[in-house]
Amino acid sequence: MTVSTSLSRTETLSLFSLSAACVGIIANTFQGDGEPLIASIAFSGIAYASTYALIRWLGDVFMRAGLKGRDMSKTRTDEIPETMGAVCAVVYLLIIIVFIPFPFYKDIVMATSGGGNRDLVLEVQHVETGRLLHRFPHSKLSSYLSAILSIQSVVLLGVGDDLFDIRWRHKLFIPAFAAIPMLIVYFVDFGVTQIVIPTPLRSYFGALFDLGWLYYAYMAAISIFCPNSINIFAGINGIEVSQSLVIASLICLNDALYLSPFTEYPHPATDSHLFSLYLLLPFIGVSLALWAHNWYPARVFVGDTYCYFAGMIFAVVGIQGHFSKTLLLLFMPQIFNFIYSAPQLFHIVPCPRHRLPKFNARTGLLECSTAEFRKPLSPLVSAVMRLMHRLRLLRIVENDAGQITESTNFTIINLWLVWFGPMREDRLAIGLLTMQTIVGLVGLFIRHRLALWVFTADNLHYTYSSA
Amino acid sequence: MTVSTSLSRTETLSLFSLSAACVGIIANTFQGDGEPLIASIAFSGIAYASTYALIRWLGDVFMRAGLKGRDMSKTRTDEIPETMGAVCAVVYLLIIIVFIPFPFYKDIVMATSGGGNRDLVLEVQHVETGRLLHRFPHSKLSSYLSAILSIQSVVLLGVGDDLFDIRWRHKLFIPAFAAIPMLIVYFVDFGVTQIVIPTPLRSYFGALFDLGWLYYAYMAAISIFCPNSINIFAGINGIEVSQSLVIASLICLNDALYLSPFTEYPHPATDSHLFSLYLLLPFIGVSLALWAHNWYPARVFVGDTYCYFAGMIFAVVGIQGHFSKTLLLLFMPQIFNFIYSAPQLFHIVPCPRHRLPKFNARTGLLECSTAEFRKPLSPLVSAVMRLMHRLRLLRIVENDAGQITESTNFTIINLWLVWFGPMREDRLAIGLLTMQTIVGLVGLFIRHRLALWVFTADNLHYTYSSA
Repeated sequence: MTVSTSLSRTETLSLFSLSAACVGIIANTFQGDGEPLIASIAFSGIAYASTYALIRWLGDVFMRAGLKGRDMSKTRTDEIPETMGAVCAVVYLLIIIVFIPFPFYKDIVMATSGGGNRDLVLEVQHVETGRLLHRFPHSKLSSYLSAILSIQSVVLLGVGDDLFDIRWRHKLFIPAFAAIPMLIVYFVDFGVTQIVIPTPLRSYFGALFDLGWLYYAYMAAISIFCPNSINIFAGINGIEVSQSLVIASLICLNDALYLSPFTEYPHPATDSHLFSLYLLLPFIGVSLALWAHNWYPARVFVGDTYCYFAGMIFAVVGIQGHFSKTLLLLFMPQIFNFIYSAPQLFHIVPCPRHRLPKFNARTGLLECSTAEFRKPLSPLVSAVMRLMHRLRLLRIVENDAGQITESTNFTIINLWLVWFGPMREDRLAIGLLTMQTIVGLVGLFIRHRLALWVFTADNLHYTYSSA
Repeated sequence: MTVSTSLSRTETLSLFSLSAACVGIIANTFQGDGEPLIASIAFSGIAYASTYALIRWLGDVFMRAGLKGRDMSKTRTDEIPETMGAVCAVVYLLIIIVFIPFPFYKDIVMATSGGGNRDLVLEVQHVETGRLLHRFPHSKLSSYLSAILSIQSVVLLGVGDDLFDIRWRHKLFIPAFAAIPMLIVYFVDFGVTQIVIPTPLRSYFGALFDLGWLYYAYMAAISIFCPNSINIFAGINGIEVSQSLVIASLICLNDALYLSPFTEYPHPATDSHLFSLYLLLPFIGVSLALWAHNWYPARVFVGDTYCYFAGMIFAVVGIQGHFSKTLLLLFMPQIFNFIYSAPQLFHIVPCPRHRLPKFNARTGLLECSTAEFRKPLSPLVSAVMRLMHRLRLLRIVENDAGQITESTNFTIINLWLVWFGPMREDRLAIGLLTMQTIVGLVGLFIRHRLALWVFTADNLHYTYSSA
């Protein structure tokens, strides 16, 4: 199957109708008071349609510019376009920028003495218009812009990574640089570094505890972790986009819990969760369009750009929405994969150039890929690996002398193959994604059932803490 | 001469000392009240040093990624790195983001009920601390961030242009897309679309006239014009960077007129011109480092990215500083070049693929490049071209039948060669830049001498207009 660079008539018609419907909805919001959430959904539809069309149209252009690669898990050997995540990212950025006037009140400057001076400003601070018409006060605009800046930075650096093939230990810091705008604006604009202490510990620490600069280190760590953890949970068709879609949907579900009619309104976290939805819905739009081209058998690759882009959106939403702990609950499979990968990432165990599963051309199935050890491993490492083998967390091969000569690679994808045996690429992806969805749903359930035991506020019940 | 990819010992020492001194100055501003302008100068020093080093170190990496080109005006045929403007841009963006805490007061959030809510905010609105310690009120942060967003957008799209070699008629719209963040935030955040009417016309229009959406069209036009006009005034070593440095310096001079001790303080335009300096000083820093490598004989090329990047900074500064008319005065040579180029750009006269001057390998000098006309030109076009030839604004060649068969290309660079004959590449650049500087200085002189005849406020005298 080669890459088609044009849309079929059905595709053109569907995408055109979708876009037309969305434009209609957006135009309609101008007539009424403008429901930002409805507009956001419509914008996401446009995001889907334009990304879908652009991925098709730009395939050739990308190939000619050298952004192409060969799928190592297929029998065919032709090359397909790489770095298509950049198309998603550019469409996404444009959409969330054009969206700005919808959720924000217009700051009405009545008089100016020139040069951008605001001599008289009428600010709309607290107008209650109900759940659907809820808008952000003007002071939130800086946060929103800094979020966009961080996402755009990670895309710019991500494209650099895809172009120049940056070394692994440098890659790690791409999201760190990209997080700077968000952290700096947080510092200037909000600057609260206090955390709420769980009820049982309040007698020791008080209700609030000021983390100071540690809070910035924590935010930076989240920003570095999310993009990179998606980037290492990769290697089979569709897994990067699908896992991002699962995480995004689960965050949206969590947001919906705070905005549903069963939740009191206004709730102190309403703004945060609307903010989260406004950033995530268009992301889901562009990702679905990419998914349609990247799912097995892939017709385009997403590139590191997409992984950084997706991870950064989650980090931004979690940090600026002040629900980073919930976010980490939804990253359980990625956290497991990262910890499980650590021995190879930090070279405690030799790490081959590629760790993706091995394609068996005869059966058409994926099998565990392995790392071979020329030199004997240290006794401690060998002992731990033998234990993991016994716990079915690894599969090792020993020679007659009892030395470990080979082991499966330390990734969750290989572990899945250890557990369930060789399987086709899409079965493997579906298995992993089902697991991820279940783990995420259980995480959210626990978070909302158990949170009130340790904290005083939630989506269902809240009392202002006596800060 | 090949590209050296490492720094000499002298260079390392100089750059290191410069950086150390700048870091020292910045650290010192923490101890006192923090003079933002001093910090900005120090940051610009760091910007220079890091760009200089990075251009060297990354030369090879860019060549390997295919970002390279051959200098058509040299006898040597080896390739040198292209798109080095992207390095400038990334350093620049990082610097102006890290700079944010210096010019902005910290918004002090005293209490929050969670989820990013600001229940109690102490805002520092009007603290007068004198000329050097002047800081921006918090409401300016959104403008500053939207400026960065627009610059970053143009860089992202510019890199795309350099990679994919986008068609000329699509290129034109790259800055238009990039201007969207700035225009949208202007709409939400400030929204003033009134212009001050010159005194003689006030009896007809009143003191202020509301342009409405035309004002946005005007801002978009400026944003499209500035980057593209630099992009077409290009083609010889160092001309893109040098012309940008001349414009930047002249804007800084204009800013200094508003901030000098001879100007009343506080002045309504103080903020605008500080804003302009904060964006331009680091730009001058990164550009000087690029200039050192791009001046004749060039060791790197700047790429379209640089032209967009530079032009967008000027557009942003002019628009958000509310001095776009003054800005256009400083763009006189570019405006002339654009109008002069128009017949070829809009295909009224056939336009060859490249219009840069022709290198004569025997003499080592640059000569006018020409366009040949296979088909006879229309009588009107011929008549105009003959007139231009007589006015020494063009050089044409006619055949025996009196038909124009050849003419010099319609660029200011070729016109210069028509006027002063073949010359070496650096002489040509120096000539054009001297002309540009003189025109700019005269423009500024006129603006500051004559403005008070038609408007009521200036840097030297101002009275609040009775708006």
